[in-house]
Amino acid sequence: MPLAPWRSPLAHALHRNRALPYARYVQLATLRADRQPANRTVVFRGFLENTNRLRFITDSRSEKATQIQAQPWGEICWYFPKTREQFRILGQLTLVTADHADEELLKARKMLWHDLSDGGRSQFAWAYPRQPKTEPLEQTPPDPMIPLPTFCLLLLEPTQVDHLELRGTPQNRYLYSQQEPPLKDWSMEEVNP
Amino acid sequence: MPLAPWRSPLAHALHRNRALPYARYVQLATLRADRQPANRTVVFRGFLENTNRLRFITDSRSEKATQIQAQPWGEICWYFPKTREQFRILGQLTLVTADHADEELLKARKMLWHDLSDGGRSQFAWAYPRQPKTEPLEQTPPDPMIPLPTFCLLLLEPTQVDHLELRGTPQNRYLYSQQEPPLKDWSMEEVNP
Repeated sequence: MPLAPWRSPLAHALHRNRALPYARYVQLATLRADRQPANRTVVFRGFLENTNRLRFITDSRSEKATQIQAQPWGEICWYFPKTREQFRILGQLTLVTADHADEELLKARKMLWHDLSDGGRSQFAWAYPRQPKTEPLEQTPPDPMIPLPTFCLLLLEPTQVDHLELRGTPQNRYLYSQQEPPLKDWSMEEVNP
Repeated sequence: MPLAPWRSPLAHALHRNRALPYARYVQLATLRADRQPANRTVVFRGFLENTNRLRFITDSRSEKATQIQAQPWGEICWYFPKTREQFRILGQLTLVTADHADEELLKARKMLWHDLSDGGRSQFAWAYPRQPKTEPLEQTPPDPMIPLPTFCLLLLEPTQVDHLELRGTPQNRYLYSQQEPPLKDWSMEEVNP
């Protein structure tokens, strides 16, 4: 499938900010059960091969996993400090748990698990998140070939991308929107900042 | 009124990250009318005097102003790159427009307008945000004593603060929660990351 038109400016921003490790950190907003928004930092893990879906990871025991199962829409806000630009990416979230029905996505989950560091994998063996603090157990690193059941691949399928360049007076702002299925083409409009 | 207990670690983080101008940028999540979350970067403008309410500014014509009027809850996510810590601050939002009923808040709105730079104030005279791009008009800087009608003070009154320190193995996480009114005391619990 073709790359969406916002992929090129995003790749450019990633490249120009590559000296900052936290240029791959984005903030993901989801909805709580009580309709209050939630917001936290997650690490961008590249795109799912041959798609425009962004990859993240999460623990099945985290609040966001529960929130996403109930309301699968999210928006990430991605600020690039060096080039002073922001991408807001709204889309549908898919949580790929150990018992997910799609074989291809299970394969993708396994591959991402394999590519993590020992430290990254170990976090999925930690005590239950957000419960009263318990002492950490001594652990051997999890097997790189077998994802722990708590490990989830999280995918974001964008439907709208709002790109703001703060440099320049006035600023530049581009709005990318996906047309309704079955076409799913993207349109782009330059708008006031 | 007394400072909430999370004010001290937050002040500490602000101080230790003060060399990075973007350490004062936070991501604010709100709710769209269609129940999808929205997320964008806003600049922290300090606390409202003698309160624990965080100050931001926004344009009355922006989508977030409309969203906040309909659903006044928001969560900011604040990542500090140098010290590698995150504050998630959930709370109730108040939009202080030009016709707000509270005299004290109108005074606070006027004071913040006055403290902006000419460039900051000029943005509130720009063309309608998110409409098809129009050519900028030549403008004289707005009067520092008289806020433009589009200028809003935005306040966040926290009810829950989730502080995560990524440094250390395992990480440290502290959850601050406000008790129900009328007491409004804060409790703090150390939880698993």
